[in-house]
Amino acid sequence: MTGIEYKLVIKQIYINSLKGIKSSLTSISRQLGFSLEFVSTLIESLVEKGSVEVDPDNKYHLTVVGRKLISVVLTGGTFDILHVGHLFTFNQSKLLGDVLVVVLATDRNVEKLKKHTPTNSQEDRVELVDHVKAVDAAIIGDEDDFMKIMDLVQPDIITVGFDQKHDERDLYNTISSKGYSHVKIIRLQKHVSGKSTSKIVQEIIKHNYRQFDDDNLETLLKFPD
Amino acid sequence: MTGIEYKLVIKQIYINSLKGIKSSLTSISRQLGFSLEFVSTLIESLVEKGSVEVDPDNKYHLTVVGRKLISVVLTGGTFDILHVGHLFTFNQSKLLGDVLVVVLATDRNVEKLKKHTPTNSQEDRVELVDHVKAVDAAIIGDEDDFMKIMDLVQPDIITVGFDQKHDERDLYNTISSKGYSHVKIIRLQKHVSGKSTSKIVQEIIKHNYRQFDDDNLETLLKFPD
Repeated sequence: MTGIEYKLVIKQIYINSLKGIKSSLTSISRQLGFSLEFVSTLIESLVEKGSVEVDPDNKYHLTVVGRKLISVVLTGGTFDILHVGHLFTFNQSKLLGDVLVVVLATDRNVEKLKKHTPTNSQEDRVELVDHVKAVDAAIIGDEDDFMKIMDLVQPDIITVGFDQKHDERDLYNTISSKGYSHVKIIRLQKHVSGKSTSKIVQEIIKHNYRQFDDDNLETLLKFPD
Repeated sequence: MTGIEYKLVIKQIYINSLKGIKSSLTSISRQLGFSLEFVSTLIESLVEKGSVEVDPDNKYHLTVVGRKLISVVLTGGTFDILHVGHLFTFNQSKLLGDVLVVVLATDRNVEKLKKHTPTNSQEDRVELVDHVKAVDAAIIGDEDDFMKIMDLVQPDIITVGFDQKHDERDLYNTISSKGYSHVKIIRLQKHVSGKSTSKIVQEIIKHNYRQFDDDNLETLLKFPD
């Protein structure tokens, strides 16, 4: 038994807390593919070390000490139509820590900010992103207050995509004033493909509208900002 | 140590063979997150049982006996724009066996069959699908001969999506005549969302072309078969 198995249990308890899943011996055993006996031994030792605590219903929770044994990376976006640029964002972000949490903008916020409805609903988008190998947990953002997500996720690192409009300094000032001055904000590099959802939408339209002449196409391809 | 770890090693050697990755102690240890010593113990025992053989370069290969210890599910398609219906296909297929291999139609074959170029290139499509949790290996299909993929993958089960046009009997007759009469062909159910790439493309166009009146939109939304 090495340190890896302990970390897997801690990660799982953390991920379950984000997804509203209760961490019991049974759930952790099923999720990690470890035997009940093995999970039980690992948890006992984690409780002894003060990393995990048990509630009256025999559900497990991380203590502050336990939470510090993993580093959590948070990234966010709309992720309406998955493309290789998104995979790059996820893979790069995951390299920076132990757990990658992705927060997705709600449909209403996408409409407000991008002035168009996403093609995939927030439920479909979160399901798609949650199925990506590098992603440990995808969650839907808060409609009004980003700090609610900060308080839930408690990230150590926030990554920002190369083309996202956030100003890192503004973001840092906002979160610092709420007690998150220890959080690092990292802007990711551009993926070589240069893919973006807008470009993909343009491609889709080009491929399906050959009957239009180029002038028309130019007009068609103008997006709201 | 339970049977699970042996199976993981066998799965990894099989997946590596599809992806052209050499299976050495180092590569398997890195891929599974197991220590070199642990992988070494597992492999020694697998060699002893006749499930794995070693070549002169100390690379590992499955024997016929070893390959029979896992069941392989093969599914295929274009998978141009990933949606929750695809996840359903992958998850359902994965439930039927130990390893899920997804074969993607080449760009040229998509053009021939669907009369339009895919939005994402075959390289991007294979990368996207390969990053889905349920998928063990995504590979690009053969341009001319499906049997080459059969000979490479040697599936135990083939799943066909609810909306794919293959006739299961025709497919079965073709593969049986080439020595694959033991392979089961299973047609999957429809996902509740009823999502399909064509529908998503329609959604994308609707969302981006509000300036068109409905009549025009109807014309626009006609796809080649």
